[in-house]
Amino acid sequence: MSTIDRAHCESRDLDDPLRHCRDRFSLPNGIVYLDGNSLGPLPKTAPEAVSRCVSAEWGDGLISSWNDARWIDLPARAGNLLAPLIGARPDEIVFGDSTSVSLFKLAAALLASSSRGKNIVSETGNFPTDIYILEGLIRLLGGRHDLVRADMGDVEAAIDDETALVVLTHVNYRSGAMHPMARITEKCRSMGIPLIWDLCHSAGAVPLDLQGDGIEYAIGCGYKYLNGGPGAPAFTYIRTSSQPAFDPVLTGWFSHARPFKFEPDYDPHQSIAKAQVGTPPVIALTGMVEGLKTFDDVDQNTIRTKSLALSDLFMALVDQELSEHGFEIVTPRNADNRGSQVSLVHTQGYAIMQYLIAKGFVGDYREPGLLRFGLTPLYLRFADIWDCIACMRDAMETGAWDRPEFGERKTVT
Amino acid sequence: MSTIDRAHCESRDLDDPLRHCRDRFSLPNGIVYLDGNSLGPLPKTAPEAVSRCVSAEWGDGLISSWNDARWIDLPARAGNLLAPLIGARPDEIVFGDSTSVSLFKLAAALLASSSRGKNIVSETGNFPTDIYILEGLIRLLGGRHDLVRADMGDVEAAIDDETALVVLTHVNYRSGAMHPMARITEKCRSMGIPLIWDLCHSAGAVPLDLQGDGIEYAIGCGYKYLNGGPGAPAFTYIRTSSQPAFDPVLTGWFSHARPFKFEPDYDPHQSIAKAQVGTPPVIALTGMVEGLKTFDDVDQNTIRTKSLALSDLFMALVDQELSEHGFEIVTPRNADNRGSQVSLVHTQGYAIMQYLIAKGFVGDYREPGLLRFGLTPLYLRFADIWDCIACMRDAMETGAWDRPEFGERKTVT
Repeated sequence: MSTIDRAHCESRDLDDPLRHCRDRFSLPNGIVYLDGNSLGPLPKTAPEAVSRCVSAEWGDGLISSWNDARWIDLPARAGNLLAPLIGARPDEIVFGDSTSVSLFKLAAALLASSSRGKNIVSETGNFPTDIYILEGLIRLLGGRHDLVRADMGDVEAAIDDETALVVLTHVNYRSGAMHPMARITEKCRSMGIPLIWDLCHSAGAVPLDLQGDGIEYAIGCGYKYLNGGPGAPAFTYIRTSSQPAFDPVLTGWFSHARPFKFEPDYDPHQSIAKAQVGTPPVIALTGMVEGLKTFDDVDQNTIRTKSLALSDLFMALVDQELSEHGFEIVTPRNADNRGSQVSLVHTQGYAIMQYLIAKGFVGDYREPGLLRFGLTPLYLRFADIWDCIACMRDAMETGAWDRPEFGERKTVT
Repeated sequence: MSTIDRAHCESRDLDDPLRHCRDRFSLPNGIVYLDGNSLGPLPKTAPEAVSRCVSAEWGDGLISSWNDARWIDLPARAGNLLAPLIGARPDEIVFGDSTSVSLFKLAAALLASSSRGKNIVSETGNFPTDIYILEGLIRLLGGRHDLVRADMGDVEAAIDDETALVVLTHVNYRSGAMHPMARITEKCRSMGIPLIWDLCHSAGAVPLDLQGDGIEYAIGCGYKYLNGGPGAPAFTYIRTSSQPAFDPVLTGWFSHARPFKFEPDYDPHQSIAKAQVGTPPVIALTGMVEGLKTFDDVDQNTIRTKSLALSDLFMALVDQELSEHGFEIVTPRNADNRGSQVSLVHTQGYAIMQYLIAKGFVGDYREPGLLRFGLTPLYLRFADIWDCIACMRDAMETGAWDRPEFGERKTVT
């Protein structure tokens, strides 16, 4: 294999069909942002949209904006913008609540309407909030379920006749490794086991075909690859054909068939609105809509092609430039088994990441020893990857990372 | 009793100790806003604060703003701003999630950690989402509880040895009638029955003394009297002395003692942070903080004094100006028994309210026949009340309200 240089990377940028999308974001000067898997950057249209929501819609329109500015439609409007990006149909997605609450509302409803099995199967290395939420739900239900945590490769074997529910995050937040979604879904479907996919690290990052794969239930984060802003609402997906049987238990008034009739008894909406709970977070949803618009006219396969090219380049450059410096690539090399990030392990990972951040290459760090680099095709350039690896190589060769000032900062996933 | 005229109202405005607070809001020209019990108006500082959050903190600071802009502290920071307004101590309140979700998380946790009783007592006319949430929770728990709904005056009698939990909204959203909070709390305390107060229509509107009254658990809305913006996060209060025993069941990662250690097992935070669930809604919380700041340097008793004066004036003017036009005041005349709104019933209530809104007097309407007028001391003037009643009187005398164009608009509580 021939040596890769910066000129090679620059030439790939010239050929990049997503090159124009970078201009959709306000990116700070001097920063190469490799943390879009934690918090997506600001869409250029978001400040004006949020400002209009606050000053004109709230300030001038007041209560009438629920209708006049169509605040009431925001959860479904955001959902319908997301739909083509994850292979869903219209009216299968609503935004609102956090990812944690969204998982709870699906998992609780599915357990309440089924008496099959006693085990809730998840992955040992699942993002902790998913595990915590399931632990809390099990306790609430009196401890009649067990949480079964299997390593990624053992998940399918752990799904059996004793399984009540399966909850899996499609792409692992640490390693970037990806579950075989279609195969696991088919296994659960054939056994009649409800399955919830957490798409936090895949929606907007890897191709999804919720319709084609027969996915019934999914949730996902708005503030990572979907660029919805800090703490943006999460989304909840329920397949059209599964909506009639879905019986909500987190039964807030926005899931009611007629919320503004203020009826004394609960009667769920017959659409995806049954997955809503309380009053929609209007200002946050306004930011969320602008995040989703950054995907306008971009198809999933183009994103995936560039995502894999970026991560192939990243790993090739780790091999080429950093082979003597103690880094291990923990993300699967096989494209079918990974999402849109590359993770490295290094015994001095924390200080190295702090050094990189100080130099403008913003990834993040997770104990123990894990450096995460989110590779987001809408705004990253191939030359950015070169520059990041070059910075790491220089730091390792000169020992520049090994100074006390690179020992304190922490970031949030 | 002498006749009240506009000059009398104007003179009261000149003596109003809260007169300066009106300037804290951006109020549209030509509008008298009597719907702050549904959606508070825009604080003047909110557009700049939200814009800074979006453009500088998110756009420029990116992920580092979790620490550098103290996003991580927003739920508790908002809580500590609210504390003096409801007689709570520092570190007893967090903001986040909707009112519906906040009620669920308290009610579910209290039922999960107690086996006493089978009845959940609430008020027949409670705001529907509270009833719906309790119905859903009962179903999730397998139907071993019954929901007992008592009329407002019968609630205390319904609390007995069979009671597992009491959930009451302090001020009724329709009538504005107010429960005797201290007395009901003491009854529940003496019987060992957990009690959740919903403060949606009282926080920021009527004096509360959660500490003095021995309140253990409360939730409330951010977007009504607290002026936090459309769909603003709700708050959850847990008394300091009740926090150690409170065992969350909606166990998202932000309720964990060490969320950023990404530990495999759940271990709740030992502070009020245990009432958080998922990632905080940063942009919405930024608006919420500005809403709470509109109460800076204003004490509850001054607010209450003006609130009662406004509602006394409103009712006196209904008696004086509208006595021949078929209105009935359904809000209690006794100051001890009402919140900060006045509600009227009229057979033609819907069309009359649409007329008023068209003329710039923005209240709202609830079936059947209910006209609601929220009386918010920070920005309403005594002369505004005069003008509203005068508009109603003119409409009734001329029949101007009775035109087809006043038959379509709807608003949201």
